[in-house]
Amino acid sequence: MNKKTIAIDMDGVLADVELQIIDHYNAAYGTTLTKESIQGLSEEEAFNGRDLLIEILNKDNFFRTLPVMPDAVESVRELQKNFEIFIVSAATEFPLSLAEKVAWLGEHFPFIKWENIVLCGSKRIIKTDYLIDDHCKNLDYCIGKPIMFTAFHNINQTHHLRVNNWKEAVAVLNETL
Amino acid sequence: MNKKTIAIDMDGVLADVELQIIDHYNAAYGTTLTKESIQGLSEEEAFNGRDLLIEILNKDNFFRTLPVMPDAVESVRELQKNFEIFIVSAATEFPLSLAEKVAWLGEHFPFIKWENIVLCGSKRIIKTDYLIDDHCKNLDYCIGKPIMFTAFHNINQTHHLRVNNWKEAVAVLNETL
Repeated sequence: MNKKTIAIDMDGVLADVELQIIDHYNAAYGTTLTKESIQGLSEEEAFNGRDLLIEILNKDNFFRTLPVMPDAVESVRELQKNFEIFIVSAATEFPLSLAEKVAWLGEHFPFIKWENIVLCGSKRIIKTDYLIDDHCKNLDYCIGKPIMFTAFHNINQTHHLRVNNWKEAVAVLNETL
Repeated sequence: MNKKTIAIDMDGVLADVELQIIDHYNAAYGTTLTKESIQGLSEEEAFNGRDLLIEILNKDNFFRTLPVMPDAVESVRELQKNFEIFIVSAATEFPLSLAEKVAWLGEHFPFIKWENIVLCGSKRIIKTDYLIDDHCKNLDYCIGKPIMFTAFHNINQTHHLRVNNWKEAVAVLNETL
């Protein structure tokens, strides 16, 4: 029988984009934001609108140098035993990020083949059994079962199954076997 | 009601990759291949294995400078009136191609938004009502109805609905409305 499929988001799920944005933002604008200080804020509230954020996201090497989320590598490798894993990142808005994301995956997740990497776009047409993502704009419209990965901007959302970290994600998914 | 969705492949469908490969191949290896001389051959047969081909496909600017397939721009614009169009290209095998493909689409198909661009990967998890593609490896396993776009390497395949050019593609799809 074919394995069930899981689509896994990159930014905020595999990659600690939150930490990287805060570091770049503080360095550029002399602020003292921390992970704690932005809990429960939207991205626009946390970073004073979308323009400065987009400027940061468009910087060379921003996506290539993202820290890996705790336990992400071992967890994805563990899930790969019983599921087919696709990495699905809404990346085409930032063309510079595309090659950086593939290189980043090659470094940290070399066991993910190019056939299983999807850089989109809307995730509305991605048909997998599960989607692990931190954004409602993806989770609310996905075809498979949505699993919300906790991030500062989503802690007040309660309408999706939530996992707070990778150990919880593995536990939830292995229970479906 | 939501519009029906069409996934459209890039290489060999929107972009005349055949012509570009032949030009690069002849220039590099002193051959005199033409579109006519490779009809009915597989890509491996036409280009003496896969290694030389992959070398060409990895060249800077190869994908950025592809010629547009005849009638492709007007046809996609026409289809966009009644369908939602997604551009779905198996591109992650060639990381250099990723930003080039987005830039190429921006130049020739500026009416396609980034949300509707998918660079993958296997197309097995792309759920649209139709897929227009030239490769059996994509058409044989897609979720939607496959439509084969004629290319030198597929002219002997008979198990998919075939369109020979963009005018035929528009006619076939508009008939489904």
